[in-house]
Amino acid sequence: MAGSVGLTRVLEPAGVLPQAAWRLDASPEIGPDEVRIRVQRLNLDAASYRQLASKHEGDGAAIRAEVLDIVETRGKMHNPVTGSGGMLIGVVDEVGPESPLPVKPGDRVATLVSLTLTPLRITDGLASWDGLSEQVPAEGTAILFGRSIVGVLPDDLPAELALAVYDVCGAPALVDRVVRQYQDPTVLVLGGAGKSGSLSLAAARRAGARTKAVVVSAAERDSLLAAGLADEIAIADARDPVAVAQAAGTADITVVCVDVPGCEHGAILATAPGGTVIFFSMATSFPAAALGAEGLAADVTMLVGNGYVPGHADFAVGLLREVPAVRALFEARIAAD
Amino acid sequence: MAGSVGLTRVLEPAGVLPQAAWRLDASPEIGPDEVRIRVQRLNLDAASYRQLASKHEGDGAAIRAEVLDIVETRGKMHNPVTGSGGMLIGVVDEVGPESPLPVKPGDRVATLVSLTLTPLRITDGLASWDGLSEQVPAEGTAILFGRSIVGVLPDDLPAELALAVYDVCGAPALVDRVVRQYQDPTVLVLGGAGKSGSLSLAAARRAGARTKAVVVSAAERDSLLAAGLADEIAIADARDPVAVAQAAGTADITVVCVDVPGCEHGAILATAPGGTVIFFSMATSFPAAALGAEGLAADVTMLVGNGYVPGHADFAVGLLREVPAVRALFEARIAAD
Repeated sequence: MAGSVGLTRVLEPAGVLPQAAWRLDASPEIGPDEVRIRVQRLNLDAASYRQLASKHEGDGAAIRAEVLDIVETRGKMHNPVTGSGGMLIGVVDEVGPESPLPVKPGDRVATLVSLTLTPLRITDGLASWDGLSEQVPAEGTAILFGRSIVGVLPDDLPAELALAVYDVCGAPALVDRVVRQYQDPTVLVLGGAGKSGSLSLAAARRAGARTKAVVVSAAERDSLLAAGLADEIAIADARDPVAVAQAAGTADITVVCVDVPGCEHGAILATAPGGTVIFFSMATSFPAAALGAEGLAADVTMLVGNGYVPGHADFAVGLLREVPAVRALFEARIAAD
Repeated sequence: MAGSVGLTRVLEPAGVLPQAAWRLDASPEIGPDEVRIRVQRLNLDAASYRQLASKHEGDGAAIRAEVLDIVETRGKMHNPVTGSGGMLIGVVDEVGPESPLPVKPGDRVATLVSLTLTPLRITDGLASWDGLSEQVPAEGTAILFGRSIVGVLPDDLPAELALAVYDVCGAPALVDRVVRQYQDPTVLVLGGAGKSGSLSLAAARRAGARTKAVVVSAAERDSLLAAGLADEIAIADARDPVAVAQAAGTADITVVCVDVPGCEHGAILATAPGGTVIFFSMATSFPAAALGAEGLAADVTMLVGNGYVPGHADFAVGLLREVPAVRALFEARIAAD
């Protein structure tokens, strides 16, 4: 893939890629293959927002102040505790003459690369945000590099809905790919009622799998039952491996969509020998997964959920259009936010 | 697989598996399907030992005191900073009547599950260890659960050598499996001169791959050249993604065997679209890998290096016997320790 990866934006430490950098240069002047976006809204990663809300005990002003401080200090919205970011929507402001990205000024777009590597400057002090939701109205500028991923927002979907889908669009595309490597598999989704979870269930079923879900509450079970995306639904704490294995039995493919730490062992224990675990939660611990599988003598393939699969954005939007129940779940979650 | 996973040994927090537990009950009395080992030697995980040595600036007495403190506090040698452990060798002392493990009292064995989940009691204050090596002579007791992995030590190999091989035996077995999913692939090993690295190179070549290695120094290059395991060898800092990609070009399969943080992006950048990255380093950051691939728009499969593949111990010992160069590299590393 052509295009630069943003090395000239890295201020410290030198020589690393933007995602690994402590601090980026977020100045709005663009290089020849860069694109500047006029920011309208940030969508914070769930694990990141949860950590901030928990630290500040739900005090919106304090949460807002810390987000501003992170962006000011790092030149990007890269939560130093969780290591995660989120994404944004905005309008294309200027396109460098050598940019390979398929956008033009005036396009309303969502960035499909993480905020952890996106140079970002906030100019309105986040005055329109109460700090109480992952969806952050914001004014400012963001920079896209030559090698990047950006999606023009579909005309037939509200921007908030498209953004919520794009945020997790790697999950259904990867689930589809893995399901097609098995013969009539059973797919278990931990956190099946959430955004990435419901899209994963829909993708698994469309690819021919039998579907099971673990959810955390009766309310989530009821909404997922109504959606009809899972053949079986169990209520269990995904952090409790014994409870997960008892409630869900085993599966050929287990998809972890619960954004809290400690779900690795339940997922491994619930996966049949020769099966695959796909970790989409940013709260996943690499050593817990690696050592957990070894400790359980579990012959399972464990995938780091890559947020990029070619065509992933169109794939996810297509699922949303095709499966009204998924769209209803997304709209309900957005309304509840 | 039959057998219990050690839930009765978990003291806190309740309901998690032993690896996730803060503290285990390491008392030497065994349950009906447990096995007690009389410990002879611990082999600390490289990332764990490096962290301890760095923290205490190479002060052996201080390193020893901290290892004792960890084992005393947690009931297992589970480094709370790195999240990693290591393994041990010893002699089988008592086998519960319901244990499914293929061992009998008097067998000299290596435990092939991590120390992070192995109840451990040290009784000699590690008096025979100077704190200056990952190999720790020790007296005490360790417990194996029903569902566990244990290898009887081969008669034809020194115990230290077998232990060093067993410690990384998941790597060559998984590399072999992945190489066979590709047609004439090129395999790049970051850290190719190390233990898991050299076994991975040997496994890749035997499975028909073309092999490349990145090493950190001229000395490592020379020893790997002499071993003849890699078709190409480059010197680069594996934490510098641009240097890695320039030095090594691209590969279909990239294997990360460098036990330092920050190697995710170089591995991703060096892997061709459709390729696979296998992370064996316990220093791997899950978010850095997931967000890094997304940020680079890299369509690569990323595997958490599972320490367990059926038959992995015999597979690795077989490679060592078959490829004298690998054995020589291992012996040189052990001598240097």
